[in-house]
Amino acid sequence: MMESILNRTVAAIVPVDQALEAKAQARLDRLTKPLGSLGRLEEFARRLVAITENPSPVLDKKVIFTFAGDHGVADEGVSLFPKEVTRQMVMNFLAGGAGINVLARHANAEVVIVDIGVDHDFGELAGLLDKKVVRGTRNIVREPALTREEAVRCIEVGIELANEYGAKGCAMFGTGEMGIGNTTPASAIAAVLTGSPVSEVTGRGTGINDVAWEKKVKVIETAIERNSPVRTDPLGVLAKIGGAEIGGIAGLCLGAAARRIPVVVDGFISTAGALVAHYLAPRVSDYLFAAHNSVEIGHGHMLTSLGLKPILDLDLRLGEGTGAALAMLMIEAGLKIYKEMATFDEAKVSKA
Amino acid sequence: MMESILNRTVAAIVPVDQALEAKAQARLDRLTKPLGSLGRLEEFARRLVAITENPSPVLDKKVIFTFAGDHGVADEGVSLFPKEVTRQMVMNFLAGGAGINVLARHANAEVVIVDIGVDHDFGELAGLLDKKVVRGTRNIVREPALTREEAVRCIEVGIELANEYGAKGCAMFGTGEMGIGNTTPASAIAAVLTGSPVSEVTGRGTGINDVAWEKKVKVIETAIERNSPVRTDPLGVLAKIGGAEIGGIAGLCLGAAARRIPVVVDGFISTAGALVAHYLAPRVSDYLFAAHNSVEIGHGHMLTSLGLKPILDLDLRLGEGTGAALAMLMIEAGLKIYKEMATFDEAKVSKA
Repeated sequence: MMESILNRTVAAIVPVDQALEAKAQARLDRLTKPLGSLGRLEEFARRLVAITENPSPVLDKKVIFTFAGDHGVADEGVSLFPKEVTRQMVMNFLAGGAGINVLARHANAEVVIVDIGVDHDFGELAGLLDKKVVRGTRNIVREPALTREEAVRCIEVGIELANEYGAKGCAMFGTGEMGIGNTTPASAIAAVLTGSPVSEVTGRGTGINDVAWEKKVKVIETAIERNSPVRTDPLGVLAKIGGAEIGGIAGLCLGAAARRIPVVVDGFISTAGALVAHYLAPRVSDYLFAAHNSVEIGHGHMLTSLGLKPILDLDLRLGEGTGAALAMLMIEAGLKIYKEMATFDEAKVSKA
Repeated sequence: MMESILNRTVAAIVPVDQALEAKAQARLDRLTKPLGSLGRLEEFARRLVAITENPSPVLDKKVIFTFAGDHGVADEGVSLFPKEVTRQMVMNFLAGGAGINVLARHANAEVVIVDIGVDHDFGELAGLLDKKVVRGTRNIVREPALTREEAVRCIEVGIELANEYGAKGCAMFGTGEMGIGNTTPASAIAAVLTGSPVSEVTGRGTGINDVAWEKKVKVIETAIERNSPVRTDPLGVLAKIGGAEIGGIAGLCLGAAARRIPVVVDGFISTAGALVAHYLAPRVSDYLFAAHNSVEIGHGHMLTSLGLKPILDLDLRLGEGTGAALAMLMIEAGLKIYKEMATFDEAKVSKA
């Protein structure tokens, strides 16, 4: 049956063992520093131990998946940029000139560009993963974003990538996306799944002005009214008002959690994907790190629903996975503290 | 005369040229991303251009100075740890097992351990810079921390290090410190220089309880009353209620600013040093980056006085330069964005 990979994956996601976190903290407390004085770095380390069920996790192979897709709703004037920028930016990613390329190199992470829904036929292109489910998510003002089957297929793409790269030994994933217009479906998902008014979860995207913002809010309200998504059917929410790359990200989170691989969730759109995953499998959050606090106003509402606290707050609003690359550097810092610092006994330092 | 190196250095500190920041921002605005969408990373890049007066700054050689010193006031029971831990931690630094060693390796920065005031004779030790000015800062409850001459000498140590490492081609400095009891003089400096009540700028240090905290507040109030430091004489503030490593950090900030070298100021104690530097030469702040928002409650008051916004907020309170190491990774990320991203023209991406 159509949903079986998804169902199997959801069923495989179990809560992380709190006892492992406590055990990791006990080691952290023997290191040569006042108790708890490395704050969130300690949190990152103990969570990694619990997620991986490995007392000495290894994160040397990290990969950021940047899912690209177009959005019919871009025709409504919700973005500052023309739709062809999605395709152009895919070419920029492949040439190594985009923000995510620079920051992933800085974080020593691989970038995998996934065409899950771009409205362009790229043919065979070195470095581009062809996982196209749709040629553009449909215009949610007029019709559902995806059929239910397409929504499932988008999630499966993410699950399959998690399985494939997990099997290759990748130990940490980051999420990212590119899609002109995609803050619109992300805001729609945020409104429905967090139960917030549309105006409270709709931001400026690439930088629209007040008039365009009011239009964007109306577009989202109309899309929700027309498609009637309900929180109790998260797959339906994704299909009705979501988008291909958001589905891919949801799938990546689910697939990773089922394999005990930590996922660093980038910003606003990625978090919408994570939230869909969370409504499908609540414990997926145990495996997620929130990279940063986006400028997009709806982000905080979604992070609260996920129970996640962002690692960085650098006024970012680019997407692509840029925040995830930066946050990986902090998570790794925590792991290195846990693995490399001397204990009080080893260093012959007096305890308090 | 005694203060001549200091005076010369202070006189050499000029405001950074805002026009250079604007020029750097113009390049950032041509890169393939929505305007301003990389937030503070863009700020870091444009500030580096203006600080170094180099349109393409190079940061490959970074060094963190960890100044170590003891404090007579530790005898008053203001810290959880015994005084010998300062000496023991110096040995831990030299062996590479402390938090700063781990995080500096992660950030690809060198660590230089400076004995500026430890109450122990280390003799010749590989890796330890002997710049001892005092064998322990004196107990500020009973007498001034340092003589005025010692205070000047501590600042000169920092200036000389900035000159020496600047001449060697080091392009970015970080500050750090180790000294049991040193949140006490740092809080005293914060109170006097920001004009805040002692109780508002005194925190838990290594983790003292309520009773010890109340005692610490009293100790600081007594020290201020006995020594009568005044804000208009920042050198007197350092001498009366400060400490050797705080003076070294102040000097490093001044020496770096005079040479147009950016300094990443770590947490609470480092910021007290930066604040002394700021009162000696207000424009020193143009050359400083605030690494993080410390758990110590007085930190925010000092950052406000300096006009600096912290880069990270990870609940750190270890010191040593650990926050500076982490923040360097973010500042470098900004520089790489500025230098490595493709422009709209280069990547043939349509503009908004």
